[in-house]
Amino acid sequence: MNHRLPVPLAKAYRLLNHGPTVLVTCAHGGVSNVMAAAWSMPLDFMPPKVAVVIDKNTHTRKLVEASGEFSLNVPSRRQAAETLASGSTSGRDGDKIDQLGWQVFPGTLTGAPLLEGCLGWLECRVIDEPHIQQSYDLFLGEVVAAHADSRAFRDGHWVFEAGSPRSIHYVAGGNFFETGEGFEARKPGE
Amino acid sequence: MNHRLPVPLAKAYRLLNHGPTVLVTCAHGGVSNVMAAAWSMPLDFMPPKVAVVIDKNTHTRKLVEASGEFSLNVPSRRQAAETLASGSTSGRDGDKIDQLGWQVFPGTLTGAPLLEGCLGWLECRVIDEPHIQQSYDLFLGEVVAAHADSRAFRDGHWVFEAGSPRSIHYVAGGNFFETGEGFEARKPGE
Repeated sequence: MNHRLPVPLAKAYRLLNHGPTVLVTCAHGGVSNVMAAAWSMPLDFMPPKVAVVIDKNTHTRKLVEASGEFSLNVPSRRQAAETLASGSTSGRDGDKIDQLGWQVFPGTLTGAPLLEGCLGWLECRVIDEPHIQQSYDLFLGEVVAAHADSRAFRDGHWVFEAGSPRSIHYVAGGNFFETGEGFEARKPGE
Repeated sequence: MNHRLPVPLAKAYRLLNHGPTVLVTCAHGGVSNVMAAAWSMPLDFMPPKVAVVIDKNTHTRKLVEASGEFSLNVPSRRQAAETLASGSTSGRDGDKIDQLGWQVFPGTLTGAPLLEGCLGWLECRVIDEPHIQQSYDLFLGEVVAAHADSRAFRDGHWVFEAGSPRSIHYVAGGNFFETGEGFEARKPGE
């Protein structure tokens, strides 16, 4: 059964708002790649925009610059090993998507492949800002389509229930935190 | 007892790497302010840099632009109510730091006040990039000093033990996730 549902663009920022580690996917000229990125964030609500750091030494960087597109995939804890490996090997040395056993499905509005088993997906077109790309490896993208696994995100909200897959947050040296307990805060006095 | 210890600059990115919600503090001309920000991320390792979105309608924006400085404070779950309030009221209507009961201590290299009870602190100087500030409300900063509560972050690592305060991750509508279980991943086959 396919649990993927579209996410309205106005709610797309919520896929990233809590700061999960993501996987950047990209494709150009028949070559595709995946790279882990702990450094991404929403940049605007509507139209939704994102920011992500893509080092100039990466294979992904070349494909993103050539295609003007990338997708952000929000992995689950079950994919932590592959996420770690996607951040520490290069697609220059062969088809990393294939080597790491990622299964993919096509984007709806962009050419970057999307990764099966992830919890959310943001298809992005690069907003051309050459100076910050060159100076800081910083890429801005407009989110043109978003999707989520309805078992993890539905009606605009993450639903991390007991036993359901959760997103992950990378620290360093192979160490992650799982997204933990949800809670609602109220302003003081309310 | 004071549990604050300096964090070596090369490890400062780890205070933000897992994507916690932060509080932006700032000061100029005797006026200071605090603002919650879910949209921040590390931008470089060494010298450490950060990126943060500061809306042009905020009081914080004016103080950051005037002073060329800001600090990022990583709040604990115990501070979630004040964090929420800091993101939904304006310092234009009075001294928000005082109204919300934040206690502060001075930065070591910058003039922005730092918030007592937080888990980590990054003192930053704005990297002047007027185009992206104006077009995207996107501010880049160089981290010139970093500190952490040694009960939560020591020897370059977060130590979220049972009962110890944890960082938080904002979603929307007053809803947060706590930073959850830590785990170590290994690359497939290792």
